[in-house]
Amino acid sequence: MHDFDVTILGCSSAMPTKKHFASSQIVRKNGSLYMIDCAEGTQIQFFKMGFRPSRLNHIFISHTHGDHCLGLIGLLSTFSLSNRTAEINVYAPKDFESMLFSQIEFYLPNASFHVVFHALDFTSVNTILEDKDICVQAFLLNHRVPCYGFLFYEKKKGNRINKTSIERYNIPIKAMAGIKEGDDLVCSDGKVIPNSELTIPAFPPRKYAYCSDTKPVMSLSDTLQGVDLLYHDSTYIDTDEELAIATGHSTASQAATFAKQCGAKKLILGHFSSRYKDESVFLDDARSIFPASVLADEGLRFTID
Amino acid sequence: MHDFDVTILGCSSAMPTKKHFASSQIVRKNGSLYMIDCAEGTQIQFFKMGFRPSRLNHIFISHTHGDHCLGLIGLLSTFSLSNRTAEINVYAPKDFESMLFSQIEFYLPNASFHVVFHALDFTSVNTILEDKDICVQAFLLNHRVPCYGFLFYEKKKGNRINKTSIERYNIPIKAMAGIKEGDDLVCSDGKVIPNSELTIPAFPPRKYAYCSDTKPVMSLSDTLQGVDLLYHDSTYIDTDEELAIATGHSTASQAATFAKQCGAKKLILGHFSSRYKDESVFLDDARSIFPASVLADEGLRFTID
Repeated sequence: MHDFDVTILGCSSAMPTKKHFASSQIVRKNGSLYMIDCAEGTQIQFFKMGFRPSRLNHIFISHTHGDHCLGLIGLLSTFSLSNRTAEINVYAPKDFESMLFSQIEFYLPNASFHVVFHALDFTSVNTILEDKDICVQAFLLNHRVPCYGFLFYEKKKGNRINKTSIERYNIPIKAMAGIKEGDDLVCSDGKVIPNSELTIPAFPPRKYAYCSDTKPVMSLSDTLQGVDLLYHDSTYIDTDEELAIATGHSTASQAATFAKQCGAKKLILGHFSSRYKDESVFLDDARSIFPASVLADEGLRFTID
Repeated sequence: MHDFDVTILGCSSAMPTKKHFASSQIVRKNGSLYMIDCAEGTQIQFFKMGFRPSRLNHIFISHTHGDHCLGLIGLLSTFSLSNRTAEINVYAPKDFESMLFSQIEFYLPNASFHVVFHALDFTSVNTILEDKDICVQAFLLNHRVPCYGFLFYEKKKGNRINKTSIERYNIPIKAMAGIKEGDDLVCSDGKVIPNSELTIPAFPPRKYAYCSDTKPVMSLSDTLQGVDLLYHDSTYIDTDEELAIATGHSTASQAATFAKQCGAKKLILGHFSSRYKDESVFLDDARSIFPASVLADEGLRFTID
């Protein structure tokens, strides 16, 4: 299986703190990098963790609060100083477009590459990127401003050919693509080997979902059903639920309840308010509902098996 | 004497690196803080080093390259999240005004405080701030875009009253201000004590100058004559002088030559290009001309004696 993992570059809410950078993370699939959110200091984290800019062509901005996008112009500046030529695709709520291009015009009038802007401006679930490795869907969350979550999932692959069958029936290379798609094998002596004898089922497509910033949106649990890994807003601990409601965020328990309803395999809690010195309370709150909960932290890499 | 010192928050050129943050520093005088430049990540450094936002009311931006100003909107965002009410004064080249206020309107439509913009748009030496503790002058440097240096100097104080005289002549408090300004003391019996017998000279005003980014501007050595501490662009080592010329920067030797011509007491080399792994070469280059040269580094505090 190709690598498919998520690395946390920052997971604080509102502002960088002594402990955390603000929101950003890298999804890696088969060597390609996809950035979600780009707070101030993201480029520092990106390079510190050894990611290669040439692998990054797509940046997804959930919403236009500064703690999710203020680092983008700095990252683009650094790419331009490095004479990058490959275009960068930015997916963000539509109101970000004019600000982003104003900044590019002001700070990077001679940028070495193009920025292609993809406006997020819909209320239904939409596929916003599909390449050879991955599909990305965006969906509306429930925050104080238009804010989108993202679902990354592998494309459906054909069945895998059983290695013992390759040897036993001497399957020619030119027949393999068809067999993966369901063809039977017609041998040189006219004998037909049914597909079921030649193949084993494909790995189920793996899925990762990012839901921040948001109040819990239970209606999204259908879209995210069976997600392998879920990152969810967990700005407040349960005793501060009123603050979560007032600010358009979630508590740890709300994140856990949502993860349970999605049938998620694992939940990453993140976007922590700086008011809490002891973050283990988030974990205690969440695990009482959804045991497979973990805390985000800078540098942590979560492999999606 | 009141405290008067400079703390380096960042000293890399062009972009943050694994070793350095980009340009920012704090001048501290008698408890008040003055920020020079505000690159991405400045707020992280500011809080990490324990500075108090309530002490900071003036921010000086040398020029509008991103590595000197991209952190400002993040810093202001954090101040607003903390419900700051005191206004912030920003001194910057005039073309920064529209970008800054566009960002404020976009990211901080409900900012809790006002930003007062002071446009730098002159070619002579101008006093841009004068408060009870300090005067700040701005002067044009020689970079690829309009770029200003800053001279911080203590206001000229009156002579100090000799402690032994206070006791010997029982000097009344109401007479002290006049004596500091040069008055003689008229005793109750009519006897006149000359001022020279009552006072010792004031401490000479201390001076700090920031010159980055720039080619060396020798004509500024009159303005900066006798400066106690000088921070100067030292982007390149001597063997890369051609790069310095091409990009509007200085080599370590050029910085040292300028410091010598200013009669500076100490030179801080900064704004290092990330191309050099061994920064001791900057120091060797500079010290061969100006022995009192030191390297900037994050967290270093330079006291102006």
